[in-house]
Amino acid sequence: MPPPYDPWVSRHSESESKGARTRRRIIERAAVLFNTRGVAGASMAEVSEATGLEKGGVYNHFATKQELACEAFDYAASLVCDRIEKAMASQTDAPARLRAFLDVYRRTNERPLLAGGCPLMNTAIEADDTNPELRRRARAAIERWRRSIAATLEDGMRAGEIVPIDAGAVASTIVATVEGGVMLAKLYGDGTHIRAAIDHLASFVDSLDARVPARSG
Amino acid sequence: MPPPYDPWVSRHSESESKGARTRRRIIERAAVLFNTRGVAGASMAEVSEATGLEKGGVYNHFATKQELACEAFDYAASLVCDRIEKAMASQTDAPARLRAFLDVYRRTNERPLLAGGCPLMNTAIEADDTNPELRRRARAAIERWRRSIAATLEDGMRAGEIVPIDAGAVASTIVATVEGGVMLAKLYGDGTHIRAAIDHLASFVDSLDARVPARSG
Repeated sequence: MPPPYDPWVSRHSESESKGARTRRRIIERAAVLFNTRGVAGASMAEVSEATGLEKGGVYNHFATKQELACEAFDYAASLVCDRIEKAMASQTDAPARLRAFLDVYRRTNERPLLAGGCPLMNTAIEADDTNPELRRRARAAIERWRRSIAATLEDGMRAGEIVPIDAGAVASTIVATVEGGVMLAKLYGDGTHIRAAIDHLASFVDSLDARVPARSG
Repeated sequence: MPPPYDPWVSRHSESESKGARTRRRIIERAAVLFNTRGVAGASMAEVSEATGLEKGGVYNHFATKQELACEAFDYAASLVCDRIEKAMASQTDAPARLRAFLDVYRRTNERPLLAGGCPLMNTAIEADDTNPELRRRARAAIERWRRSIAATLEDGMRAGEIVPIDAGAVASTIVATVEGGVMLAKLYGDGTHIRAAIDHLASFVDSLDARVPARSG
């Protein structure tokens, strides 16, 4: 059996310098703290408490909360995007890639990649009116995800695996439905809502699969 | 031509007492401030600045920021829920009610009901790990919205207007897709994303409408 999921455990090599390890630990713990409490809602004192460092020790590595928030966001976003891209890369045709990506989200409420919900959506919502630099990063991360779905749809259309559709519009719809489902499941503390959204998208992918016969009425 | 939308203008009667008018003005302006900056991101000093009152004048009406945040949320949520319910009540059969609700969201990016995006989603995301009372209110407001869609679907099934489906799951999917679309449109500053999500849901409603022939393949 695999060990229980622990977002605090670094997965990186032991050849890192002590300074680099400390920096990484600050980023990993700040990512959890900011993802649960928000950047405005968490203080640098709480970051130092979560890392077990003196406040000065945190400031040795990051001059401002904003600088740390940007690095923590990039780390959190890479966890999400890498997981999605790895799932999609495990399959060879476009409909199977899309289904593999949807499967990542079926149990996201019970086994989150990062405590606090989706860091892309959390940062998008917090930063959109208040923090242009974090907003830019949230948009870039969501666009990376949206583009990987759109590119899969375009490849699938060229290969005759996907029926002709507007790949950009479908990609926006899929990202919107997943993120809204994650929000509901987190708010209710009930994975039923994200599974309803994912089941809907799985049927939608079936309807886009050029090899699945259309339902008759 | 109607006057341009102005969320600062109170729509209430002049027979209110001066104290009630002041209280209402604080709630209305705090709702905008909290919806754009977040509750953790906005101070009571900013509330008093936005209302043009001394800080003591705000505290005369609300003992704490939390108390004001709860009342401001209820006000903002009622704007959203009333708008949705009014659109649905304008139609007589279930598919038309659902389409009328979707139409509310087509231009939400260009003509928002409240600056800062959807207050239900914003509060859900900010409060879910940090503020149990606001989280409870966000969940109650989203549940009111989700239940009104589920009840419309159930009425439609009984009337033979909607094909047999799991009304709760479909309602979750619809709320998720709309909220995710609002998040994307706000993040990108581009209404294309919410319109893609709404167009998808409109096709989905067509597929649930018992009187629309199923597409053939």
